[in-house]
Amino acid sequence: MQALPLENSFRLSRVGITGVKKPVRIHRPHRGTLTLIADISLYVNLPSTQKGSHMSRNMEAVTEVIDATVRQPVTGLEELSAQICRMLLDRHTYATFAEVDMVADYFLERHLAPDRRSLEPYRLLARATMERDGPLHKRIGVEVSGMTACPCAMETVQGVLRDRNPKLRGVLEQLPTITHNQRNLTTVLLEVPEEADIEADDLIEIAESSMSSPTYGMLKRGDEAELVLRAHERPMFVEDVVRDILAKILEKYAALPDATQVTVRSESVESIHKHNAYAERVTTLGELRD
Amino acid sequence: MQALPLENSFRLSRVGITGVKKPVRIHRPHRGTLTLIADISLYVNLPSTQKGSHMSRNMEAVTEVIDATVRQPVTGLEELSAQICRMLLDRHTYATFAEVDMVADYFLERHLAPDRRSLEPYRLLARATMERDGPLHKRIGVEVSGMTACPCAMETVQGVLRDRNPKLRGVLEQLPTITHNQRNLTTVLLEVPEEADIEADDLIEIAESSMSSPTYGMLKRGDEAELVLRAHERPMFVEDVVRDILAKILEKYAALPDATQVTVRSESVESIHKHNAYAERVTTLGELRD
Amino acid sequence: MQALPLENSFRLSRVGITGVKKPVRIHRPHRGTLTLIADISLYVNLPSTQKGSHMSRNMEAVTEVIDATVRQPVTGLEELSAQICRMLLDRHTYATFAEVDMVADYFLERHLAPDRRSLEPYRLLARATMERDGPLHKRIGVEVSGMTACPCAMETVQGVLRDRNPKLRGVLEQLPTITHNQRNLTTVLLEVPEEADIEADDLIEIAESSMSSPTYGMLKRGDEAELVLRAHERPMFVEDVVRDILAKILEKYAALPDATQVTVRSESVESIHKHNAYAERVTTLGELRD
Amino acid sequence: MQALPLENSFRLSRVGITGVKKPVRIHRPHRGTLTLIADISLYVNLPSTQKGSHMSRNMEAVTEVIDATVRQPVTGLEELSAQICRMLLDRHTYATFAEVDMVADYFLERHLAPDRRSLEPYRLLARATMERDGPLHKRIGVEVSGMTACPCAMETVQGVLRDRNPKLRGVLEQLPTITHNQRNLTTVLLEVPEEADIEADDLIEIAESSMSSPTYGMLKRGDEAELVLRAHERPMFVEDVVRDILAKILEKYAALPDATQVTVRSESVESIHKHNAYAERVTTLGELRD
Repeated sequence: MQALPLENSFRLSRVGITGVKKPVRIHRPHRGTLTLIADISLYVNLPSTQKGSHMSRNMEAVTEVIDATVRQPVTGLEELSAQICRMLLDRHTYATFAEVDMVADYFLERHLAPDRRSLEPYRLLARATMERDGPLHKRIGVEVSGMTACPCAMETVQGVLRDRNPKLRGVLEQLPTITHNQRNLTTVLLEVPEEADIEADDLIEIAESSMSSPTYGMLKRGDEAELVLRAHERPMFVEDVVRDILAKILEKYAALPDATQVTVRSESVESIHKHNAYAERVTTLGELRD
Repeated sequence: MQALPLENSFRLSRVGITGVKKPVRIHRPHRGTLTLIADISLYVNLPSTQKGSHMSRNMEAVTEVIDATVRQPVTGLEELSAQICRMLLDRHTYATFAEVDMVADYFLERHLAPDRRSLEPYRLLARATMERDGPLHKRIGVEVSGMTACPCAMETVQGVLRDRNPKLRGVLEQLPTITHNQRNLTTVLLEVPEEADIEADDLIEIAESSMSSPTYGMLKRGDEAELVLRAHERPMFVEDVVRDILAKILEKYAALPDATQVTVRSESVESIHKHNAYAERVTTLGELRD
Repeated sequence: MQALPLENSFRLSRVGITGVKKPVRIHRPHRGTLTLIADISLYVNLPSTQKGSHMSRNMEAVTEVIDATVRQPVTGLEELSAQICRMLLDRHTYATFAEVDMVADYFLERHLAPDRRSLEPYRLLARATMERDGPLHKRIGVEVSGMTACPCAMETVQGVLRDRNPKLRGVLEQLPTITHNQRNLTTVLLEVPEEADIEADDLIEIAESSMSSPTYGMLKRGDEAELVLRAHERPMFVEDVVRDILAKILEKYAALPDATQVTVRSESVESIHKHNAYAERVTTLGELRD
Repeated sequence: MQALPLENSFRLSRVGITGVKKPVRIHRPHRGTLTLIADISLYVNLPSTQKGSHMSRNMEAVTEVIDATVRQPVTGLEELSAQICRMLLDRHTYATFAEVDMVADYFLERHLAPDRRSLEPYRLLARATMERDGPLHKRIGVEVSGMTACPCAMETVQGVLRDRNPKLRGVLEQLPTITHNQRNLTTVLLEVPEEADIEADDLIEIAESSMSSPTYGMLKRGDEAELVLRAHERPMFVEDVVRDILAKILEKYAALPDATQVTVRSESVESIHKHNAYAERVTTLGELRD
């Protein structure tokens, strides 16, 4: 019935399925083989001349590509998305566009003190889009939780303290000043050009090092003090987090082409407000290089 | 501190606040004055030469515009978004772009049988964006829950039944055939050109009449039978729902200009799968008219 | 069909409907008449001898009680829940237990500085349960967002600073010490005994005054400094928040009977961890008085 | 600071951490070793004489127990929860109660047709609670998505069709009748008594076979027809789903003691309403056996 010809109808931008959960096997050179639980959405377009998209072909494409990874793990979620994307265009012969989106929990070992290893949770994001006979675009992304301490409140508090304690001028400046701080959630998405291999761990490293401080599941009392001191030595707005990441991406990926797409978002669960603070840049490496 | 000049930094696409909740007063000619609880996000861009956005000005803008609606209710969420957008550009003198997004619960009286009134829940969406010295774009949208019955399974089931009951050919075709049906969530967003007034209730009417059947909070046993029968007389894919809405929008808004943006999405909580089915068209009235 | 008699089956604890959204009108003596959007769940039990619960009677009960509030607003969500509870037992003659749960957004005017009014968002919770021929129990609750600053990290940081700056002993103690702080979400539920009238605004006041600081949508730079200073003068664990609230409830509601149920929960979106901290007490006024 | 003695304060029911994510390794005899991503919450109580709970000991307990599973996988999430529970009481010497809750995605191979294998997603739940010097209680649970078709609407529709087609009496009864159907989410939790071993896969099997039909990610057109036909041959209320599961649990776990706790919940995403239908039984095997 989906194949029924239509006259005088409308084409559709994206038709597909959302919320598909699958375990997938990824092989990273330095980490060995990992099993991730991916939440997958996938779509093709639909011409105005056809009643419906063959939805079951979507699950066939997902299943075949993922089944193949049991024998031959892929190198990343973005590569898996790309393979499904190609298979979607193979199977949906009427379609000229395909898109696959994925998100999965991910873990990396981190430590504040050398003997205090902690397996920290992150999220991986991936997207592949493809026009038939056109290039395939794939993106890899990471979602990283960390801490931001506000530089503005720090400054105004210091002003208040100086006014209240005129004799302590000179001393106050040597001490860390209180401010509000909070959990921050930062997302980095980077296009992976053909032939390039972007390591998601590097993007996590970039995002995590661009906040006031990384955060850890396990902290001894001394660790807590150290983390709090570090965060207050490095107060950052959400704007600062995004710009810091953009600068590091420019430096790290100097070899990638100008057309490479970059999206960076940072959202702080403000401790002094009931709402969040947000900053975002959607751009290309070329624009950043200007 | 936000005002600090920067050298050699990056501009940001959007900086602002998310998750702001406010009661707002809307006056609709045919409905009188309503109080809605809006969940609001708002942003401006930030030049590369300035350290931070003045976040507190965002809440000032929201508060002033909403306070004014107590004396003079606005005509809709999209108009409220537009007013806040303009005030954001007034207050953030360094910004050249502003965006305001809103979502709110909304209710309309519906009835299946004339004496069975039921207040049904919907959601209103609104967005306004503006470039400094450029035009302001505003959109109004609705999110509508209804029911879809699958035409494909209906057809294959009928084939099976015909094969199993060869003597009933001719009879089977007169009877409604079983199929899977499910809750569907459909979203329509329409740009509201300058001087135009789009009634959100009309968009709800369009979306609701484009599914296999509307749904109701209160149904007597006879109502249930009637609703189920109606839905099976009008089986629809998510693709059909989107196209039906596009056709009605074309007809209803024949007077709106070609550049008017339209987005229609339909997602079914598939009863035969653990995942959802999805269809979408992002377009303009001009493209649809071709 | 629901009325079919069953033999040898199982009784069910709760059968009903969830996720019902309705606007309701509440009249509070000092606030006038308010419209709230309630998200409602309601249940009755089902004897082992009956096949199904008459689900449509649930919506009838909700609709009739809420419709009546248009003419005669009720005094609170817990009273509305109680009225629906009674009507459920009237309508479901086979049931011996009924339960109604509600949650709704709510707003109160707050100010840090006298001329800086801000309408802050909260949530109201309500529950009513009733055994046939037994007493009706109703509870009113509030969900309040605020800020907690950690006393433990404050102390360890101060130790580190003293060690690093031995000459500043005596001075350090006069200055506020940095620590991690974060958004906290606290819930208070209190049973409302027959004839008693508990004001939800009082519970919000109690919860909000029991954190390191309340939070505000709009803060000028000076306000931010003041709020941060206040929070650091009053560092609190989630445990402290819960205990502070319990003490205030004991004092404020000295006239309520020993059997009155109390639940207090506090959860902090830890800024130094990716997980949350949580504390809870489920008790009665009598137990607290011991 | 947490260890500070308090006078005249309140004990707390539960103090701990929520939202901890960890990969854990489970070894099931018939399935080999699996990696699951668990979302964990854990708590101990706190006496009135102590200021705070030593929160970092919670993560130590989680980490040590989970690290040990890398060398020696545990037999299930409920056993892992039990081990963490015991370690919590070891570490929090002041506590007399400990609780650990877990939830994780899980997958099982299913097929409608023998050659159409499909890896279907479920969720595992686990809980362990322990009083110091008292018994440890552990529970294993499953969350299963499937399909329910409404028997009531089926009957009323059949009545309508009979009235409309008096000549088809006798024929109508031989054909499946249309009704509304929808996605259903059912949860089963069963206490695992000391020395007993409950297989979560069995609970999934029980839940899945107690709906109108299981659901599948991949369905060919013929499969769809078959699934729809099966579901309409077996129409079920949420009440029926819960009772069917209770009966199967009684039979399957005849050897378990009377005190064994059982909770069964079923919620349908009603296709004819915007709200859900819900049924629940919280009980023990002993009560069910009466």
